[in-house]
Amino acid sequence: GFATAAQSNKVTIGLIPADGIGREVIPAARQVLESLPRSESSPRFEFIHLDAGFEHFQKHGVALPEETLARLRGECQGALFGAVSSPSHKVAGYSSPIVALRKHLDLYANVRPVASVAGDGQKQLDMLIIRENTECLYIKQERIETDANGLKVAYADRKISEYASRRAGQMAFNMALMRDKLRANVPASERLWKGKPKVTIVHKSNVLSVTDGLWRETVRGVKENNQALYSGVDMDEQLVDSMVYRMFREPEAFDVVVAPNLYGDIISDGAAALVGSLGLVPSANVGDNFVVGEPVHGSAPDIAGQQKANPIAAIRSAGLLLEHMGYSGDAARIYQAVDGVLREGLIKTPDLGGKSTTQEVTDAVCKRL
Amino acid sequence: GFATAAQSNKVTIGLIPADGIGREVIPAARQVLESLPRSESSPRFEFIHLDAGFEHFQKHGVALPEETLARLRGECQGALFGAVSSPSHKVAGYSSPIVALRKHLDLYANVRPVASVAGDGQKQLDMLIIRENTECLYIKQERIETDANGLKVAYADRKISEYASRRAGQMAFNMALMRDKLRANVPASERLWKGKPKVTIVHKSNVLSVTDGLWRETVRGVKENNQALYSGVDMDEQLVDSMVYRMFREPEAFDVVVAPNLYGDIISDGAAALVGSLGLVPSANVGDNFVVGEPVHGSAPDIAGQQKANPIAAIRSAGLLLEHMGYSGDAARIYQAVDGVLREGLIKTPDLGGKSTTQEVTDAVCKRL
Ligand SMILES: CC(C)[C@H](C(=O)O)[C@@H](O)C(=O)O
Ligand SMILES: CC(C)[C@H](C(=O)O)[C@@H](O)C(=O)O
Repeated sequence: GFATAAQSNKVTIGLIPADGIGREVIPAARQVLESLPRSESSPRFEFIHLDAGFEHFQKHGVALPEETLARLRGECQGALFGAVSSPSHKVAGYSSPIVALRKHLDLYANVRPVASVAGDGQKQLDMLIIRENTECLYIKQERIETDANGLKVAYADRKISEYASRRAGQMAFNMALMRDKLRANVPASERLWKGKPKVTIVHKSNVLSVTDGLWRETVRGVKENNQALYSGVDMDEQLVDSMVYRMFREPEAFDVVVAPNLYGDIISDGAAALVGSLGLVPSANVGDNFVVGEPVHGSAPDIAGQQKANPIAAIRSAGLLLEHMGYSGDAARIYQAVDGVLREGLIKTPDLGGKSTTQEVTDAVCKRL
Repeated sequence: GFATAAQSNKVTIGLIPADGIGREVIPAARQVLESLPRSESSPRFEFIHLDAGFEHFQKHGVALPEETLARLRGECQGALFGAVSSPSHKVAGYSSPIVALRKHLDLYANVRPVASVAGDGQKQLDMLIIRENTECLYIKQERIETDANGLKVAYADRKISEYASRRAGQMAFNMALMRDKLRANVPASERLWKGKPKVTIVHKSNVLSVTDGLWRETVRGVKENNQALYSGVDMDEQLVDSMVYRMFREPEAFDVVVAPNLYGDIISDGAAALVGSLGLVPSANVGDNFVVGEPVHGSAPDIAGQQKANPIAAIRSAGLLLEHMGYSGDAARIYQAVDGVLREGLIKTPDLGGKSTTQEVTDAVCKRL
């Protein structure tokens, strides 16, 4: 992380609940981290609370305070971000703090695993989406003009660079190898993905031949120029429209999927629908020096403050945070505890058809750690 | 149409099969049009064959010949387009002919109805997607540069204009009223959509506040500035990522959905997955003076020439073509014949789990006209 741990195994984590149910699920994730049984090699956590979000903007005029960034950089090895509300109308000066955070901390890959828990009656899938996290339409270079008839015409720049595409591609191929290694420990009968590891490149180069052409060629180049490393990983591709179609028809056909920023945003919500709830899907915003765990769901203002939010996406995001900080054993404990609760199927929040509270689900996970 | 019919009820339709299975499904659609029982008011069809496509490009260096455009403008009242193959590598000078056609003929709305046939065991939905068809990233203004480290950086312009957004929005509200009127003829028990007509605006204005902000405001303005016309139509909105999520979780929650070009492309493939096959979903590219029917599926080179292609998307597209040319009675005959074949469930192509050929399905539809 940016801040090096002073004592070995001491890990300082910034907690940024931000808006809405972020304020319920981030404390849930914290409770799980604090409940982890400590071995010799486990981290010892310290938490610091940090501000951000639309509500903070409304009160203080800034969505991502300088202090939050400075303390993340100066004191933390990683962070957990809750969720952020979108103003329903355009608000002058407001800009999404999570998009800014990804950019300022150079968190170039958004890692989004979407997997069904075997036997839960939903579609069976075990997919890892790697979303490029710094460019595409998210650079927010927009302008507005007036045409000869006095009508408005707006433009946005979409940026695709060789540099960012390569980093995202490398993350995809590395994760494909890593997943393959971990699968070796899973009994064959329980493995959803049975083939060679595979990376599917998502693009729309039939229309965007220059930008998505560069994306496609660069990601393909990651394998083609590193056969020694990646010859064991298969590679294929899907146009983004077919990707959404095929993902819903045959989700079991995908292992690792790598996509430019906006396509990755859309695909990961689509994949979440297949596993039963957005409330289950975690992500990690990963850079070379920092990781921010973040549930894929939004701030859900309609259910905020009612103990109805599913904490599992945030809890799994805490697992991803540990995994990408190098504590994979502790991460695995979290994943297994969550899977146990889901498989048992007794304690679940309303999004999964249950009546349990955020706290009850969190306690159930902690009990299984 | 551009060309005015010389004799009353004579309709000249350009047939552009283009690539792959386009060459099987366009003849199927033609057969259905020719088999329509003729009443006093029915059109008398003439067909002219026109070239376009990637294969044509490979042979003749041009994907959309001038002659095709000239004859569409000079001789036709409408057209049917098959499907176009995408080169798997970037090919200098090649550019998608369907994107060009939409632009040259100013076909500003792509109308994509996606509905389940009641009782087919799939998810129940009855959605109409209106996709803005002329701008967004489809303007193909792209450039590539080299950065200080010698790495490539590419940019694409995304254009959203008040003019195009308003036209798409008006189409959406008009179609919502039209659908409501037609539903009045359907027995209540068979209606999937039971509420007031509704238009859902898709955008990503939490990130693209200028371009999608303009889109959102302009489409909202269509209703807000025409309460006399549209007060009976409800309006709501969805961020594109949530749209894909919600569409899969609750497809019955949508009536008319209006989206910028690329989001519309992605959403319509997603919706197609819900009704069982891309081979069922038609579209019409609609302008003020011309209509081009076009199945939503691609050229499917893997099954081309084998009589395996589902002709229903193309046949329904012929129905949409008639509907938007003002022959709604004849269009309804086509839709009902197709629904009859699907409901019976005996004659179906492999995409629907059957073994029938393209020809057998086409004959079955013709028999029911
Ligand atoms: C809140 C929004 C800016 C964000 C995004 O589009 O990246 C969210 O949808 C996500 O997926 O993390
Ligand atoms: C072939 C391609 C250019 C086209 C598009 O993206 O518009 C297709 O996907 C469609 O939906 O008609």
